[in-house]
Amino acid sequence: MEFRLIDRIRERTAQGREDVRLGIGDDAAVVAPPVGQEIAIAVDTMVEGVHFPVGTAAADIGWKSLAVNLSDLAAMGASPAWALLALTLPPQPAESLKQFIDGYAEGFAQLAQPHRLALIGGDTTRGALTISVAVHGFVPPGKALTRAGARAGDVVLVTGTLGDAAGGLQLLQRGARVDEGDGRAAYLIERLHRPTPRLAAGLALRERASACIDVSDGLLADLGHICEESGLGAEVDAELLPRSPMLMASFDELAVRDFALAGGDDYELCFTVPSAMVVDVQTDLARLGCGATRIGRMVEGAGVRVRDAQGQWLETTRHGWDHFA
Amino acid sequence: MEFRLIDRIRERTAQGREDVRLGIGDDAAVVAPPVGQEIAIAVDTMVEGVHFPVGTAAADIGWKSLAVNLSDLAAMGASPAWALLALTLPPQPAESLKQFIDGYAEGFAQLAQPHRLALIGGDTTRGALTISVAVHGFVPPGKALTRAGARAGDVVLVTGTLGDAAGGLQLLQRGARVDEGDGRAAYLIERLHRPTPRLAAGLALRERASACIDVSDGLLADLGHICEESGLGAEVDAELLPRSPMLMASFDELAVRDFALAGGDDYELCFTVPSAMVVDVQTDLARLGCGATRIGRMVEGAGVRVRDAQGQWLETTRHGWDHFA
Repeated sequence: MEFRLIDRIRERTAQGREDVRLGIGDDAAVVAPPVGQEIAIAVDTMVEGVHFPVGTAAADIGWKSLAVNLSDLAAMGASPAWALLALTLPPQPAESLKQFIDGYAEGFAQLAQPHRLALIGGDTTRGALTISVAVHGFVPPGKALTRAGARAGDVVLVTGTLGDAAGGLQLLQRGARVDEGDGRAAYLIERLHRPTPRLAAGLALRERASACIDVSDGLLADLGHICEESGLGAEVDAELLPRSPMLMASFDELAVRDFALAGGDDYELCFTVPSAMVVDVQTDLARLGCGATRIGRMVEGAGVRVRDAQGQWLETTRHGWDHFA
Repeated sequence: MEFRLIDRIRERTAQGREDVRLGIGDDAAVVAPPVGQEIAIAVDTMVEGVHFPVGTAAADIGWKSLAVNLSDLAAMGASPAWALLALTLPPQPAESLKQFIDGYAEGFAQLAQPHRLALIGGDTTRGALTISVAVHGFVPPGKALTRAGARAGDVVLVTGTLGDAAGGLQLLQRGARVDEGDGRAAYLIERLHRPTPRLAAGLALRERASACIDVSDGLLADLGHICEESGLGAEVDAELLPRSPMLMASFDELAVRDFALAGGDDYELCFTVPSAMVVDVQTDLARLGCGATRIGRMVEGAGVRVRDAQGQWLETTRHGWDHFA
């Protein structure tokens, strides 16, 4: 079984990369690493019912399982090259297995092809639906972006808009129809299922961003990682958070703020730059299509604090974010 | 959760490799590939109840999940460097989670350390117990062993002994006690849970073996892959198959033959060499401790045929191997 399933995916993701000396089909793949580059390597696993809702289309799973990994490369400022796929699938009739695989391969390939990413290895096993993808990308020596380099005074920015994926998930959980709300639901659900890894932005941030991370667990959690690794705190202005018109038209103001602060799965980049560089970076990222919005500043201290439009600090509660009592 | 679990494993598998520029804890690891080497990359997934029995000790799972991958590198003639780990664990109390992780890390590290393998990336998720490991190893350009280079007339050899793991599994399924049979059961079950990847043998076979594969699915299936990829057939003499005294003392002759021909999980190397080179190769592999036994020959044609001691061809039946009618 193993080879035929992986072969169906390979056929759709063939890239003819010269650095792949031996692809899928032997005990291991063999690649020739480029001279004078380092290799960034990331792995992420998605489990049905945990990382995507039961019933998600196979093509969406294929896209997203690769996207979350490419997003890790984007956050490092690396350009993608090779991927491995470990696919665990529940026992099922051959026809439905084939359908899943074809759909999965289609979604995976739609994202892989424009980035010239080659699938070089894979393994399929039987069990609960679990997908683990590993990706390899190139970065010049010492130039990888990390979470650790932010300095006090650096400006915090994010690409794109925040909270869309959390809004899309909420709509799905409520049983919303995709064609509801003049395309707003479709937009938000697409943002959940088909996140866009900000690879070009990541490359543009090399030698400019002092720290960078992708927003997978929510802005507060992920900016929190930059704080920890950089030994600093961060102050964020809630009113500056970039929010899509589709999100704002679909939920009330507090829900939107919660999604933007704490919702996961957006796969935007959150990064810090010295203030003198902000305008240049914003100009370049606008040209790349995703834009970059300044949302706050790194400060001495620890942890992320959020200020509302009136300048009052918010704190988390069980139900979201509130003013201090 | 994610970082702390992976951290517990990292602590036990720290290697201080200079080529690891950035290890676990950022969006991706960063490594510096060696100049003038190609990289062999393999991934294998193990699912509880499919690849190891429910109730297998965590340390054995840790060892085996790495061993099956290192065995793929051995079959390519590559020397190991870096590993990624994607661990999906069922929801459970913190204490039992910690125990599993510590056991897993211990078994993983016991095998990783002597090979200077560094764990550079990982991801933990909740779900059915599923472990996916990817490994990276170095091999000089063009020197990787593949399944495709065998020539008619080449001699087929295997390292170590065959069928032990299948015997061990049979004993476990029968509810055998490990201390039964003067240590025979312990030996066979150890062969199942703690296979030895034949890495030194793989290096010794570079530029000598014309084709190589590791025996994970059983000799017939795996030698079958060499046949397919090399466009040849193979003839094997059943009486030449290397069998351990512990296996022979535990099962009747026909069961032992079936285990040796069709049992999986031994992780020995099956390889082909020109006949003029056989004695040299056997001498070197004897020095490395695993030895190598000649079991047959590559021939024009397709598929693997097996001959018994009387020179009669066997064929498969539902119950194992029989004489032609």
